[in-house]
Amino acid sequence: MSCDFEALAQVGVQGLKPYVPGKDEDELKRELGLTSVVKLASNENPLGISTKAKAAAEAVLADLTRYPDDAGFSLKQALIARNPGITSEQITLGSGSNDNLELLARVFAGPGDQVVFSEHAFAVYPIATKAVGADAVIVPAKEYGHDLAAMAAAITDKTKLVFLANPNNPTGSWFDRTAFEAFMVQVPESVIVVLDEAYGEFVNLPQYPRGTDYMGQYANLVVTRTFSKAWGLAGLRVGYSFASPQVAGLLNRVRRPFNVNQIAMRAAEAVLTDQDYLDRVIQMNQAGYQQLVNACDQQGWAYLPSIGNFLCIKVAENAADSDQIFNALLRKGIIVRPVAGYGMPEYLRVSVGTESENQAFIDALIEVSSAGPANAN
Amino acid sequence: MSCDFEALAQVGVQGLKPYVPGKDEDELKRELGLTSVVKLASNENPLGISTKAKAAAEAVLADLTRYPDDAGFSLKQALIARNPGITSEQITLGSGSNDNLELLARVFAGPGDQVVFSEHAFAVYPIATKAVGADAVIVPAKEYGHDLAAMAAAITDKTKLVFLANPNNPTGSWFDRTAFEAFMVQVPESVIVVLDEAYGEFVNLPQYPRGTDYMGQYANLVVTRTFSKAWGLAGLRVGYSFASPQVAGLLNRVRRPFNVNQIAMRAAEAVLTDQDYLDRVIQMNQAGYQQLVNACDQQGWAYLPSIGNFLCIKVAENAADSDQIFNALLRKGIIVRPVAGYGMPEYLRVSVGTESENQAFIDALIEVSSAGPANAN
Repeated sequence: MSCDFEALAQVGVQGLKPYVPGKDEDELKRELGLTSVVKLASNENPLGISTKAKAAAEAVLADLTRYPDDAGFSLKQALIARNPGITSEQITLGSGSNDNLELLARVFAGPGDQVVFSEHAFAVYPIATKAVGADAVIVPAKEYGHDLAAMAAAITDKTKLVFLANPNNPTGSWFDRTAFEAFMVQVPESVIVVLDEAYGEFVNLPQYPRGTDYMGQYANLVVTRTFSKAWGLAGLRVGYSFASPQVAGLLNRVRRPFNVNQIAMRAAEAVLTDQDYLDRVIQMNQAGYQQLVNACDQQGWAYLPSIGNFLCIKVAENAADSDQIFNALLRKGIIVRPVAGYGMPEYLRVSVGTESENQAFIDALIEVSSAGPANAN
Repeated sequence: MSCDFEALAQVGVQGLKPYVPGKDEDELKRELGLTSVVKLASNENPLGISTKAKAAAEAVLADLTRYPDDAGFSLKQALIARNPGITSEQITLGSGSNDNLELLARVFAGPGDQVVFSEHAFAVYPIATKAVGADAVIVPAKEYGHDLAAMAAAITDKTKLVFLANPNNPTGSWFDRTAFEAFMVQVPESVIVVLDEAYGEFVNLPQYPRGTDYMGQYANLVVTRTFSKAWGLAGLRVGYSFASPQVAGLLNRVRRPFNVNQIAMRAAEAVLTDQDYLDRVIQMNQAGYQQLVNACDQQGWAYLPSIGNFLCIKVAENAADSDQIFNALLRKGIIVRPVAGYGMPEYLRVSVGTESENQAFIDALIEVSSAGPANAN
């Protein structure tokens, strides 16, 4: 090849490191010749799909030669029914909320602009920022959580976007109403604040600030949510954002036509009416989280308290040892998530699974840890 | 609202006019209180979904709480099996080939760059170009087809991308091997040539240049294809591109994680093995195209000969009359596609449907036309 295409790419794309997903189950099976694998690596829903969502998906299979409704009329009506005060003009549907996060970066940020987010925050924020050629301003975390005061102080006249994750992935940390309100009054209206509530459905704390309670007050507030976690539809790719109508209009302008597929829209619409499913998901998550935390306490493993459906456990004192433990777990057919890329090399993140999946992970980690890092190979 | 968020958007987003899809069936039913609608507006597959694809989709419904395989291993293997010589490193999966077209613009074009395409070409080319802030260089068409000699001459040192559609939507025009080869030798290797083969499966002409035959020769050639048309999976959103490994690597870097959903990957993989389905689709399209063309000949309607699954018919002498005919057809429950936005205001584009759908369209157009444009209301 005579031509260096990398050099022809836009500056933000040059050297861009893409998102690294949790290791795929089938890939691990192929690589290691395993027949059974426990995947607790991607904060997926262990309960299985809602029967209502499955039935809705099944009902539409015969119509798949047709394009989806690009306006998403029906799903938007279901979102409005569940979120009083929100109107259709405020909604942007996304192929997972990742899509919404990228749209926000593409609409508002470019070369010379700054995007503010926290250390240890969700990996898509720096990727979406760099991909559009903007500069990331990473604010040091406070005890692994967002330092909202420092984040407000980091805003300059070049700042276009602030990404907040509540709770944050992978740390599981959160900020309360008081902190959020104190933050918002300091942000100029010309700076878009993105409140990422990907794990918000798992939270039931009176002091937790739901973005929808603040939409009327702040035209620069955008709330992003997903059906991939508590709602159990990760495989279908559907998320959404709520914003003031002008901001939503800009996002919808750049959104790919038909960006949410037909099955995803029907299943999402159906699952929104399945409160019983969501209740069971939350209950299962609470029980599973307690199971994991009890094991940590018994084994003396340090961990970061989390209000999401995942937990970061300190498995080693350094990156090399933690990496060995990750690989030793893989060989036992247990996939968890390395978080060295999040600046937390001593930790591994484990998603809350079913009782037996959690136990398999606990048993494997006990075995691998007691072998000692040096012997974990 | 005190803040003008439009002014805060990136320059390419300001004033951007998004893609206008074919009118949605359910939307028309709601608006006009109709119970039955014939939609021939989006070049969809009238045969219905392949039974193999449907079975594959059904089989994966229980697993939808899991994220898709981000690497798309299995679908890529199926694409490789069908396209000898292509390797996994050359493939980028897209959520419809629209996704691939946007990725190409985002990777290679930005403010100050030029993107070359033809007059009357697919609407996504100008949208993707403007969205990244690049300048569109629109080359006048020759008898509604791409003028490849003029397009080659339009390339400057600012040109980053050329979009070619073969056949082109909405005109149905095509260029042959000789013309394509003469074009390619004139293009500098630093300019990416995107050969959009969204409708390529419908074509069976010995002189039609398949992009895959030229991949080894031109590292700057990218071929985009979709499962939305001949393969009948528009509702699932899946497409792909083939490129040289370095170019594909850049596209995959910017591609959203999990951009193709789980059902789409499984159904696409299955339909690729369903040659019988594809044969019947092509046969049905040929018969339907002939049915429409015969009606045009009988009624004296001018049309643009097409090698795709659609046809542009000259229904009026001006935009206002053609718009009236479009609306009169809507009131009869027939949705076709206005193409005024493509610089073809006298035409309407009709997709080839089933025999009865085609006949319903023909009957309605005869009725509406004979009423005369002035009476078409």
